[in-house]
Amino acid sequence: MRLSDLPTPALCVDIEAFERNIDRMHGFFKNRPCGIRPHVKAHKTPAIARIQIDAGSCTGLCCAVISEAEIFADHGFDDMLIANEVCDPTKIDRLRTLGNRITLTVAVDSLAAIEILEGTGLRVLVDVNIGLPRCGCAPSDAVSIAQAADRAGLRVVGVMGYEGHVTIMENVEERADATKKAIGILISVVDELKSAGFDTGIVSAGSTLSYDVTGTTEGVTEIQAGSYALMDTLFAASSPFEEALRCLTTLTSVQGNIAVLDAGLKTMSVDHGDPKLPEEVAADVLFLSDEHTTLAIRDGFSEVAGDRIWLRPSHVDPTVNLHDRLFAFRGEEVVHVWEVSARGYSSPTVT
Amino acid sequence: MRLSDLPTPALCVDIEAFERNIDRMHGFFKNRPCGIRPHVKAHKTPAIARIQIDAGSCTGLCCAVISEAEIFADHGFDDMLIANEVCDPTKIDRLRTLGNRITLTVAVDSLAAIEILEGTGLRVLVDVNIGLPRCGCAPSDAVSIAQAADRAGLRVVGVMGYEGHVTIMENVEERADATKKAIGILISVVDELKSAGFDTGIVSAGSTLSYDVTGTTEGVTEIQAGSYALMDTLFAASSPFEEALRCLTTLTSVQGNIAVLDAGLKTMSVDHGDPKLPEEVAADVLFLSDEHTTLAIRDGFSEVAGDRIWLRPSHVDPTVNLHDRLFAFRGEEVVHVWEVSARGYSSPTVT
Repeated sequence: MRLSDLPTPALCVDIEAFERNIDRMHGFFKNRPCGIRPHVKAHKTPAIARIQIDAGSCTGLCCAVISEAEIFADHGFDDMLIANEVCDPTKIDRLRTLGNRITLTVAVDSLAAIEILEGTGLRVLVDVNIGLPRCGCAPSDAVSIAQAADRAGLRVVGVMGYEGHVTIMENVEERADATKKAIGILISVVDELKSAGFDTGIVSAGSTLSYDVTGTTEGVTEIQAGSYALMDTLFAASSPFEEALRCLTTLTSVQGNIAVLDAGLKTMSVDHGDPKLPEEVAADVLFLSDEHTTLAIRDGFSEVAGDRIWLRPSHVDPTVNLHDRLFAFRGEEVVHVWEVSARGYSSPTVT
Repeated sequence: MRLSDLPTPALCVDIEAFERNIDRMHGFFKNRPCGIRPHVKAHKTPAIARIQIDAGSCTGLCCAVISEAEIFADHGFDDMLIANEVCDPTKIDRLRTLGNRITLTVAVDSLAAIEILEGTGLRVLVDVNIGLPRCGCAPSDAVSIAQAADRAGLRVVGVMGYEGHVTIMENVEERADATKKAIGILISVVDELKSAGFDTGIVSAGSTLSYDVTGTTEGVTEIQAGSYALMDTLFAASSPFEEALRCLTTLTSVQGNIAVLDAGLKTMSVDHGDPKLPEEVAADVLFLSDEHTTLAIRDGFSEVAGDRIWLRPSHVDPTVNLHDRLFAFRGEEVVHVWEVSARGYSSPTVT
């Protein structure tokens, strides 16, 4: 199959850029004490996770929601961290069932969250706030959270923190300094938990943008990174990873100084900005509608309705989530068709 | 089944608000010369389309892409307008096949688009630009487009235009004036096509926000409207339709002045702004991540992890597209589970 056989819009992966990203990240962790736990929320694609695991240096997989953990377990992956609090009472039986099938670990950050998990006997990480205003307990609460988890019959196996607040720092040195400060907080918590007698075998943190700093900090056992494989446009400039995701579109209309592509908000997420055109296309993205990307064209725009044009989506994770399949290509050949098996919300308990 | 049985995030429909929206729109067109062609891109849900058709005053259904037309045909709907140019060469055989099964009509706005459809014998509407800078030929080109379609063996059955540029006008009178001007352009084109001997039996235009003005303009035979059934937060204030779409979430973390819900960018589209909280929740939406909505909480925020909180998504169409099912509720009871059958891109020709 060739790219020209694909109906558009089609979400595609430049396999060579993708392979270089995998080599770069997994190669970095070869022979280091710290490993990588690939975050599957970035692609929701078992075939990509298999490539990541096969590339070595992995401690398991990471995910954001239980449906991802269930679907990846169905595809044979046996160590999943849900790097998130699960507080929906309807999901507790599913967690228990999954915990009996695979090595399943869940994050906890409050007494309320622990109470909901009580009786499941699950493995948990104490989730510590190290700078991003989102989930994670105050560092000073970590020991009492671990003690409460212990009393509730949960098995504390370590800590996690997410220095997500550094991702908006484009200056690499500023980002490194902020990362070191954040990870320092996490390591202090590890020391306190150790002193209190807790297992801190897993110290999980990091992201694609802080992998080199977090992944070389003594005491960190694994980094959670997902974006590096396909890489977002917003962060690619300040990272060694290459944008590998492309959306193949068809030009449907050229009228005056306006041209329209057959891909829009239902094809690409715009929360990190509009998608980008190749430099050789003499046009700028004006706005997206449900199924259109409208361009302002400049002198030299020579494409006509029916021609194919590439777009580079700005935010990988919610864009991949919009598609059933990814088409990996080399040159004009489609070399893999990958199922995005864990996309969306399939509400499995109420079917 | 009750709302409390649903795993979160769950996309829900307030059935009473929905029914009032249906009654209001379809009641308006009762005994008028103009009908309504519900735009299924807004919900992609055959069960909702069935309610719309059963509510009367319909001329058929409208959709944005061929996969919607195919899936709605599979559900027994036999008159579909693809209100869009289809220029992807891989789709032409699918159009021909579908055109043999149902009454299928497609928009054309250029010689290039017509050339791609040549030989299919499809019914076409001449798509005219009446103000929105997107698809649609210049009004002065409409007759030559119709003649080219005729020569290519396509069957011209009317015209369409979309006054989408008026939707951002919050002042109702300003919007009405702009709508009249836009529809005036379309009616002039109808007169020219008639004089040139073309069938103008279908004059299709309009939207949820201009239904009353466009739908009472002499010569317009149908309005294309989709949002009215579930209604967006952005436009509800300046329309008689009520927001009927709700996302049910679970609170997963409360830390200091920050709280987190288990629904994010993969659950709700934010291209029209962040989702809104109920007034009784003492908090404001700060930002969304893939699977989180982070709130800044105020004095009086009393919810704890595990509690359910509603959000109102800002843009219906791309939000519904993220879900497999809609849960229609009355009070605490789930009264319908509707399949969003046409969501996303299933790439049927390359499976």
